[in-house]
Amino acid sequence: MKVNNIHYKTLWMEGSGTVFMIDQNRLPFAFEIKELYTYTETCAAIKDMTVRGAGAIGAAAAFAMAQAVLAGTDPVKAREVIRSTRPTARDLFYAVDKVFEAREAALEAALAVAKENEDAGRQIGVFGNSLIPEKAGILTHCNAGWLAFVDYGSALAPVYEAFRGGKQVHVFADETRPRGQGARLTAWELFNEGVPHTIIADNAAAYVMQKGLADLVITGADRIAANGDAANKIGTLEKAVLAKHFGLPFYIAAPMSTFDRNTATGNDIVIEERSADEVLWQTGADAEGRLHTVRVASPGSTALNPAFDVTPASLITAFITERGIFKPSEISSMLSPMRAGKVS
Amino acid sequence: MKVNNIHYKTLWMEGSGTVFMIDQNRLPFAFEIKELYTYTETCAAIKDMTVRGAGAIGAAAAFAMAQAVLAGTDPVKAREVIRSTRPTARDLFYAVDKVFEAREAALEAALAVAKENEDAGRQIGVFGNSLIPEKAGILTHCNAGWLAFVDYGSALAPVYEAFRGGKQVHVFADETRPRGQGARLTAWELFNEGVPHTIIADNAAAYVMQKGLADLVITGADRIAANGDAANKIGTLEKAVLAKHFGLPFYIAAPMSTFDRNTATGNDIVIEERSADEVLWQTGADAEGRLHTVRVASPGSTALNPAFDVTPASLITAFITERGIFKPSEISSMLSPMRAGKVS
Repeated sequence: MKVNNIHYKTLWMEGSGTVFMIDQNRLPFAFEIKELYTYTETCAAIKDMTVRGAGAIGAAAAFAMAQAVLAGTDPVKAREVIRSTRPTARDLFYAVDKVFEAREAALEAALAVAKENEDAGRQIGVFGNSLIPEKAGILTHCNAGWLAFVDYGSALAPVYEAFRGGKQVHVFADETRPRGQGARLTAWELFNEGVPHTIIADNAAAYVMQKGLADLVITGADRIAANGDAANKIGTLEKAVLAKHFGLPFYIAAPMSTFDRNTATGNDIVIEERSADEVLWQTGADAEGRLHTVRVASPGSTALNPAFDVTPASLITAFITERGIFKPSEISSMLSPMRAGKVS
Repeated sequence: MKVNNIHYKTLWMEGSGTVFMIDQNRLPFAFEIKELYTYTETCAAIKDMTVRGAGAIGAAAAFAMAQAVLAGTDPVKAREVIRSTRPTARDLFYAVDKVFEAREAALEAALAVAKENEDAGRQIGVFGNSLIPEKAGILTHCNAGWLAFVDYGSALAPVYEAFRGGKQVHVFADETRPRGQGARLTAWELFNEGVPHTIIADNAAAYVMQKGLADLVITGADRIAANGDAANKIGTLEKAVLAKHFGLPFYIAAPMSTFDRNTATGNDIVIEERSADEVLWQTGADAEGRLHTVRVASPGSTALNPAFDVTPASLITAFITERGIFKPSEISSMLSPMRAGKVS
């Protein structure tokens, strides 16, 4: 996708295993490409959220596994290190296992994971576009755009497809506290692609719905259980409950690699709890562009900071995948071993 | 209420019309008392949110009206200036009219408005405490504590009463973006009073409810229409929808002066739209205590910033007032002219 009108991917691997990625911790205030030469450097980049978003984490994990194999690191140990970077995103485990299993051809397997991720995004865009009416107001939460994948994205892929096809769309981007991925990354992506959009405080989503400004909600997901319960960025559950209350469709766009047959329900999904400091402090740029990290909460108090929440299947209108659009009740047939064989 | 164990009110008037108020724009990073000598200074303090919160705005408006009368300003003109400071809070209009009508005894009338506000808070605490079970998790949004009133507060008054009575309570304070009154003011109040509490990103309210950590929700209100629709800080509607979804009671605590017989429904309430900069920029203190205002959103994008939303009566379990607890359907009888006569 475009940055200053040049096409970039979120991350890629070159030569004998150097990983390049857009440094998402520096966005939107600086656009920089980070180079990572070892799998431990790539693991650190997953942990510190230089790269984030379910699909992009998956590709980074695949690249890390390939780096480890190419460097002669014990692959069993490397797999464990990579798996321990972040607990919630299904794509991470899917991708690292793919490369681990194909470790004789680790580089090719990692590139295939990244290619699959990119292709899935493109296809999700095509299918999802069919759900977007003319002159649509679209609410999204967090960033499931191309920065969350190798390219195209999941939740924003249908928006880009609709916009390029000439539909008038307007995106309401939830700020997505505490880390602000909506205000920082989704807004940055949409600005670079020229898609009309407005940032709102997470608190204003119900107002936007009540005023009839939104026609549908699309978010991504980090892991979808076999029964259709979906873990995604904290606050997604709120938007799903609101969408139901206001009679709006609530879609989750995600590649098949996000669906986890081995997780029965949302109760079985491990929710990462992150540092209270993410709530209590914020980093931003002053009027001269200098970055400061400032405390935005009362100094005597602490915070609870779950990174994700689980939206029950009953609140999800449909899933938008690279294989088509289907209801939560249709997941089990989509995930049957026969069909699952087609995923790769 | 207590600040460093000394009792303070949020604002007060001394002598021949000097208004003193805690500067809430500087909290929680500095505790300072601002002195305002003219009604235009007091109006500026309402506008720039040195003083905020429905009840405290009302008292400030009453004091401003008294200052104008004492200074010999045309009271009709002064009333218009005061009324134009903020559009949503009912208490502002209620209070300024009270003092305007009694302008021969403006000082006494203004002090009476402030006293009434304080007494109402104390009584709301007593009534509201009956709704708080032992070991209660209480979710609140924005700040309707003593800083939002002259003293005691509305939504937090029952919490303080329960805590002093020995109940184990734990408050989940929504951060309340964009201005962060929950993280900055509610947390600061609760810390100073020693009440156990945790700040959460606004996005985490559904998570807290889903995990069974909250037993009830209490918020304040800026204006309550005759049919029970209630305007309050942006995001309140979200919490009300969530409370209904998760089967939790949703209470609004407010003095009778917040009820507006002349506003038929929530559709008739003017919602103040504030600057996009409140969403796009944040002010906080760095590790050395120096304040910085930093941009927290992508520079190319703008924001929509409604300051309030309207929660329909159907989502409100009950109102907690200084006259007792009653359901939305009981408002009309509470507001009958005969009963209304008792308000003052």
